[in-house]
Amino acid sequence: MKSHTEYLTFNLPDRMGFLNITPQVEEVLRRSGIREGLVLANAMHITASVFINDDEPGLHHDYARWLERLAPFDPSPTTYHHNRTGEDNADAHMKRQVMGREVVVAVTNGTLDFGPWEQIFYGEFDGRRPKRVLIKVIGE
Amino acid sequence: MKSHTEYLTFNLPDRMGFLNITPQVEEVLRRSGIREGLVLANAMHITASVFINDDEPGLHHDYARWLERLAPFDPSPTTYHHNRTGEDNADAHMKRQVMGREVVVAVTNGTLDFGPWEQIFYGEFDGRRPKRVLIKVIGE
Amino acid sequence: MKSHTEYLTFNLPDRMGFLNITPQVEEVLRRSGIREGLVLANAMHITASVFINDDEPGLHHDYARWLERLAPFDPSPTTYHHNRTGEDNADAHMKRQVMGREVVVAVTNGTLDFGPWEQIFYGEFDGRRPKRVLIKVIGE
Repeated sequence: MKSHTEYLTFNLPDRMGFLNITPQVEEVLRRSGIREGLVLANAMHITASVFINDDEPGLHHDYARWLERLAPFDPSPTTYHHNRTGEDNADAHMKRQVMGREVVVAVTNGTLDFGPWEQIFYGEFDGRRPKRVLIKVIGE
Repeated sequence: MKSHTEYLTFNLPDRMGFLNITPQVEEVLRRSGIREGLVLANAMHITASVFINDDEPGLHHDYARWLERLAPFDPSPTTYHHNRTGEDNADAHMKRQVMGREVVVAVTNGTLDFGPWEQIFYGEFDGRRPKRVLIKVIGE
Repeated sequence: MKSHTEYLTFNLPDRMGFLNITPQVEEVLRRSGIREGLVLANAMHITASVFINDDEPGLHHDYARWLERLAPFDPSPTTYHHNRTGEDNADAHMKRQVMGREVVVAVTNGTLDFGPWEQIFYGEFDGRRPKRVLIKVIGE
């Protein structure tokens, strides 16, 4: 079994945002030389996500509005106890749980084995600073 | 390390529905000949899920009602921007994020290493058309 | 490829609760002798979660309140059909879907390859009884 690990860094300009990182994951896979196996891609920060969905700006607008409704931003210490620690990002920890930490993708014949619309996104819920994503490929 | 990949196709008669696919995943595992390792099962479409929970019709009724409350179907272009593209399924992209894209299951001694009630489901949120699920087994 | 499997048992004193199980997962990894690969950690029960987030009591308080808002406990048979079976835990099946069943973590150089704040939690939504978590390490 071979394995290959890389770390990508993203710095999104807004508090919440979605970035298609499929090309970067494909490059890591190519560099790994692995043809059959699995890729793990996960946010290394707990207010960010890696998820798979559609690369359509209207949908991303909808995701942002929907997540804000499910877990509203509120920096006051009364709504979220986490924000009594000096943080203001309790909502971001919830948004990240809805969207997920990680994806595991099949590698078949040297490519990401995807359906027609699957793309990998970095989801940021407390941005404006650099954060890392881990990519690990295992297989043969 | 060995690997084995198969694609299953499901066509659910309703817009939303849940199908127990554990027997099909077990057959793929048997055909793989792998005794120790991991199985990845993921929806290849972005308005569908693969998840693990209970095979109880009342619970599936509850899931459907709950997901409809969290992310209501609304084909109009005013509620969801995604539905300005000619699509009507923005809600399905949200329901899928709540239920998840994929599961990773341990393979131990040639079987899915499950607790007493764990069953694998295909979750459909924009059905009435064929969609694929990828099953990949890696191990020895 | 090597593999190593262990089962941990947890019995939380309350209906809902969160327990940091990172030290136990690290011990399993150490016993496996695996230096490069993946760890799967999953709840074997369908009203519990394994997830990765912050070890901060205020946040856990917020998670509990937020999940109660998204999927309220209601033992009556009228709100949730699942509770017509004699169960009272339909809400717990929903809370578990939001928080997830499993995590897959990279093993690099013999350690869990984590960002600065990542910790693994057992999330319980129908507690006061023993439940199992599966840890499987694969790699070299």
